[in-house]
Amino acid sequence: MAENKFPEVQGGGSLIVAWQIKGKHVLVVGGGEVAAGRILNCLNADANVTVVCPAAGLNPEVAYRVAQKQVTHVDRKFEPCDLDGADMVLVAVDDPEASTAIWQLCKARRIPANIADVPPECDFYFGSVHRDGPLQIMVSTNGKGPRLASTIRRFIAKQLPRDAGRAIETIGQLRVKLRQIAPRPEDAPKRMAWMTRVSDAYSWDEMCGLSDEDMANLLRFYPSGQVPLLEVLKSMRRNADVSQLDVFDGSFGFSVGA
Amino acid sequence: MAENKFPEVQGGGSLIVAWQIKGKHVLVVGGGEVAAGRILNCLNADANVTVVCPAAGLNPEVAYRVAQKQVTHVDRKFEPCDLDGADMVLVAVDDPEASTAIWQLCKARRIPANIADVPPECDFYFGSVHRDGPLQIMVSTNGKGPRLASTIRRFIAKQLPRDAGRAIETIGQLRVKLRQIAPRPEDAPKRMAWMTRVSDAYSWDEMCGLSDEDMANLLRFYPSGQVPLLEVLKSMRRNADVSQLDVFDGSFGFSVGA
Repeated sequence: MAENKFPEVQGGGSLIVAWQIKGKHVLVVGGGEVAAGRILNCLNADANVTVVCPAAGLNPEVAYRVAQKQVTHVDRKFEPCDLDGADMVLVAVDDPEASTAIWQLCKARRIPANIADVPPECDFYFGSVHRDGPLQIMVSTNGKGPRLASTIRRFIAKQLPRDAGRAIETIGQLRVKLRQIAPRPEDAPKRMAWMTRVSDAYSWDEMCGLSDEDMANLLRFYPSGQVPLLEVLKSMRRNADVSQLDVFDGSFGFSVGA
Repeated sequence: MAENKFPEVQGGGSLIVAWQIKGKHVLVVGGGEVAAGRILNCLNADANVTVVCPAAGLNPEVAYRVAQKQVTHVDRKFEPCDLDGADMVLVAVDDPEASTAIWQLCKARRIPANIADVPPECDFYFGSVHRDGPLQIMVSTNGKGPRLASTIRRFIAKQLPRDAGRAIETIGQLRVKLRQIAPRPEDAPKRMAWMTRVSDAYSWDEMCGLSDEDMANLLRFYPSGQVPLLEVLKSMRRNADVSQLDVFDGSFGFSVGA
């Protein structure tokens, strides 16, 4: 049957996305332990965070973020005007009635919101996130086992190659440099095909080991569409002038042909 | 310094969240390969999906979803009225001007949107997602290496114990049953502490192997706050009447004491 060639729908999941809150205004209502975690998540994503909570209710971590001016502090309970200009609202207070009222105000203003521990009053849930530079891995059990999500996140973190984050940085830099030497929109398909070949050709460890010199040498192969074996790149290191090498005559191996 | 005891902010990330779109209306503009991937993501999260695209532009997978009535199809190009009632908009068309116009309309109406391949016109990015029942693991490289994100996702999938999803289902069921026998809000702290002990006491493989009978037996330990060793649970299997066993007298081991 032709139908079988397409993936079957598996309902019951969430739409997991990397929300962009750089420079956006996130309002956090509450200053306890849960709020502290939310605040760190938002600061790690470069948001402008405002915390609304009476000073007496700030836990040590939130108080520290306030003292360091990492967040803006409004020293009182929530008032509806706090929502003015908010791009996202995270509520973590032990007051179900107040929480529900804030949720309803957010919905009326179409502001995405999360009321901690009240799934029906959440546009989105949080999961357990591993972070290593540009790499973020989020584990969600869709509410079935939050504790298990942390266990799985730690398990994954242990399996990952050390320097996985640095390998991604390296690939990102290569992509930027490639765009500099092949900037035209019509170059995009060749550029993307070549980057795919590079990603497939080297292991993560190999990516981490690439120096600026290696990247410059690697980019010399782009016009041909080929990707050299790592040994070839290494052999080029000792030679300031690549043209003295015979790497382009086919006598060296290529990981992936054009 | 007291400051060092709190996690340092690591900017440059995203806020990774599990967006809840069950029963929500997601508008997908475009019917190509990228749209096909977005549509599957949304159907896997139980959204009501509408695809706006002339029939001639539907790729086989999208055409299949339309024929199966998994999505609603609007057989023409996008018009602003398509945004009426939309909770989220995903655009994947090869028309930068049209895309930008849709993005601006979405912003005016405060509808979260993603314009494929145009990072500045995205409230959120997608990553590479591993799915196993209730378990979802999302890998994001924050735009540095989309190809590498897939590689890492496949790497993680290989490391995970088989049946990781089933283990989470089991824990979820246990949580539901526990709430039935200890339903009061004031039971919450004891309930949560005991669930934590259970999560810590058994490995994933062990969780997967728990039958309904095992769960019923396990729940008998809840009043004491204790969690039995797996061997104890197994020994209880052959006995219809648990009271005949001496498991509660301390002669059997406990993984974690109360």
